[in-house]
Amino acid sequence: MTDELRVNGERLRADLEELSGIGRGEDHGVYRMAFSDGDMAGRTWFQERVTAAGLDFHQDGAANLFARLGWEEGRPSVMSGSHLDTVPAAGYLDGALGVVCALEAVRVLKEQGVALSRPVEAVSFTDEEGRFGGLLGSQAMAGQVTPEYIHGARDLTGMTLVEAMASRGLDARSTLRAQRRPESIHAYVELHIEQGPVLDRKGVSLGVVEAIAGLFKWEVRLTGVANHAGTTPMNMRQDALLGLAEFATEIERVLEEHGSPRSVATVGRVQLLPGAPNVVPGQAVFSLDVRDTDPETLGYLGEAFRRTLSAIARRRNLMFEFQVLSEVAPVQCASTVVGAVEQSSAAAGRESMRLHSGAAHDAQIIAAIAPSGMIFVPSKEGRSHSAAEWTAWDDIELGANVLLNTIRRLAA
Amino acid sequence: MTDELRVNGERLRADLEELSGIGRGEDHGVYRMAFSDGDMAGRTWFQERVTAAGLDFHQDGAANLFARLGWEEGRPSVMSGSHLDTVPAAGYLDGALGVVCALEAVRVLKEQGVALSRPVEAVSFTDEEGRFGGLLGSQAMAGQVTPEYIHGARDLTGMTLVEAMASRGLDARSTLRAQRRPESIHAYVELHIEQGPVLDRKGVSLGVVEAIAGLFKWEVRLTGVANHAGTTPMNMRQDALLGLAEFATEIERVLEEHGSPRSVATVGRVQLLPGAPNVVPGQAVFSLDVRDTDPETLGYLGEAFRRTLSAIARRRNLMFEFQVLSEVAPVQCASTVVGAVEQSSAAAGRESMRLHSGAAHDAQIIAAIAPSGMIFVPSKEGRSHSAAEWTAWDDIELGANVLLNTIRRLAA
Repeated sequence: MTDELRVNGERLRADLEELSGIGRGEDHGVYRMAFSDGDMAGRTWFQERVTAAGLDFHQDGAANLFARLGWEEGRPSVMSGSHLDTVPAAGYLDGALGVVCALEAVRVLKEQGVALSRPVEAVSFTDEEGRFGGLLGSQAMAGQVTPEYIHGARDLTGMTLVEAMASRGLDARSTLRAQRRPESIHAYVELHIEQGPVLDRKGVSLGVVEAIAGLFKWEVRLTGVANHAGTTPMNMRQDALLGLAEFATEIERVLEEHGSPRSVATVGRVQLLPGAPNVVPGQAVFSLDVRDTDPETLGYLGEAFRRTLSAIARRRNLMFEFQVLSEVAPVQCASTVVGAVEQSSAAAGRESMRLHSGAAHDAQIIAAIAPSGMIFVPSKEGRSHSAAEWTAWDDIELGANVLLNTIRRLAA
Repeated sequence: MTDELRVNGERLRADLEELSGIGRGEDHGVYRMAFSDGDMAGRTWFQERVTAAGLDFHQDGAANLFARLGWEEGRPSVMSGSHLDTVPAAGYLDGALGVVCALEAVRVLKEQGVALSRPVEAVSFTDEEGRFGGLLGSQAMAGQVTPEYIHGARDLTGMTLVEAMASRGLDARSTLRAQRRPESIHAYVELHIEQGPVLDRKGVSLGVVEAIAGLFKWEVRLTGVANHAGTTPMNMRQDALLGLAEFATEIERVLEEHGSPRSVATVGRVQLLPGAPNVVPGQAVFSLDVRDTDPETLGYLGEAFRRTLSAIARRRNLMFEFQVLSEVAPVQCASTVVGAVEQSSAAAGRESMRLHSGAAHDAQIIAAIAPSGMIFVPSKEGRSHSAAEWTAWDDIELGANVLLNTIRRLAA
């Protein structure tokens, strides 16, 4: 335990507090949507902290920001970070925690003159939260961004990515030049709040992420016949809502029969047509979001849900159609990274537990080009994407220390 | 059978066709919302037909229109009619059929000099469809309209009833003077399309309505906790949609256990909050519309639905609240009117069947002050409130003849 490095808790806390004031709105939430004034101010703040620490500042073509120590072109680095951009009315930890703790780790490694055999870099990825689709910076680094995407991307107001970046003096086309060769990254590790209730409920301060769930998202349409709610006897109806209702009550059975203990499925959006209290619903359009960490299990679940919906539609005389809105492959975390995290948390003398991430993260993308892993700290009551997001300071400091020592182990 | 009167089929068809062109829009539906240009043109057309037939035209304080034969103040009349106003994009029969056939009946009685011991009157009620809440004209006639209601009523655009009537030179306050004493109406009978599929499915051309369903309409709110759809395990969720789904699948059981074969219940409107595909629904707000012809049964159903929702909410850790949006009492049709309709349909040599009305009608309101009944003709596939509304001409003429002879029998 005496060998373990420790972050400067006061400096870390001051940094997190200062950053939480950047983009803060009247609703007490944080607003640093990518390329907004808040995001730009956050970027400036990060650059100043990097320079003040005597680290090398670097910005790539996708406007990803780096704090580098011992950088040498061609030598594979140990990279750690997350994102500074936020959803609207956000909390102060989602993304920011991972960036600030990675910066603090690199600062400590420099200050203490720790001997390392690899360069280390703290990174802040561009537009993780998805003003223009999500995970833009990490996808650019992994070479997953196409010219078509760059020129087609628009935010909800209709503004293009090209316009938004140009308004900040940035060239969207250079996003394509942000790609990193796999040989250039030895390992990637990201500290993040869990955004779920598991650690908080179990009273464990540290989560070692072993996999990041993949998902498929469907838009399902059940079509029956809209009829007068007073004049149509129950046995002459083709009620689309009753099809959805029967399906929703079967979700748990399908997960139990065809999924894993990690499988989740959610119907989060429902639209009935015509949607009047006195009309039997002729159509139900709803989302189905299904996640698991195993690609084969996701395949079984897709097949089982399709079969369940078909059977219900047949039985209830409804038409069933669905459209795949998105598919993301699950990722297994690298054993080298998981091992380094577990060593570091054991050395800190604190209990940790392995779990998976149900949410998407930059680490999921970087895993395509480098051994990757994640460290979770608890989210109070699982709250996330909300100003009510909260993690105990002890857990934050523990997470930061484990991240620091994980980076050191990986770069040793 | 030789004694039975017959309507002038050609004239009736010409009238219905002419009226169907009044308020016809580009979508090929009819638009005669109360006090709209279409409604006013329909009123003018009706008045001209009344005058052309040599009948007495009368308009009461609620802008209900009358064609009267043998009118004498103080002598109880036989009244028949329906409404000329429509929903948007309406068919040509809903309401119009009952008004035009009643007018035709009164015309035939006059032309043929049929000896009657009571005055007869054809009526067109104001705003049955509900620009300002529904059934305004018949409620005014039954004395169910209050000054508070008159001054508070607004349409969906926010225009007040007072303004809408004033723009047509009408005084909304005089609505209160449209009340008729029960002694002034011997009987009321209304011909209407069924607006449901029963007659069409059974291949019967004539329905004798023995009761009009009452209803209660609730807004139900189930509240759980909104959570991230990826990071919240299934067993840590309080998913409001799953509460609604379980409830919806129990509707048939509740009707079978606590209702009658006439009971229907519908969830026609659903709103999930926050309503995003990747968020577990924290709240489900939905309508519940329940109908039956027996007031006691409606009471049992209300109690059973309340209990079912409470149990589901308890089991699923949701909060259950509901608000009563409206309640309408069921009405039994008068045996004198039902008898006269059945005699007339038997005399026409055609099969009829007794059924109930699941939809509300002016007859339901007038039943509070006079013996009332209804005659239904089939709606093709039960279609209603749609430009696709359709009834075979033979059925229309049969309905008109049975209405004519029913009026004659009641006024004899």
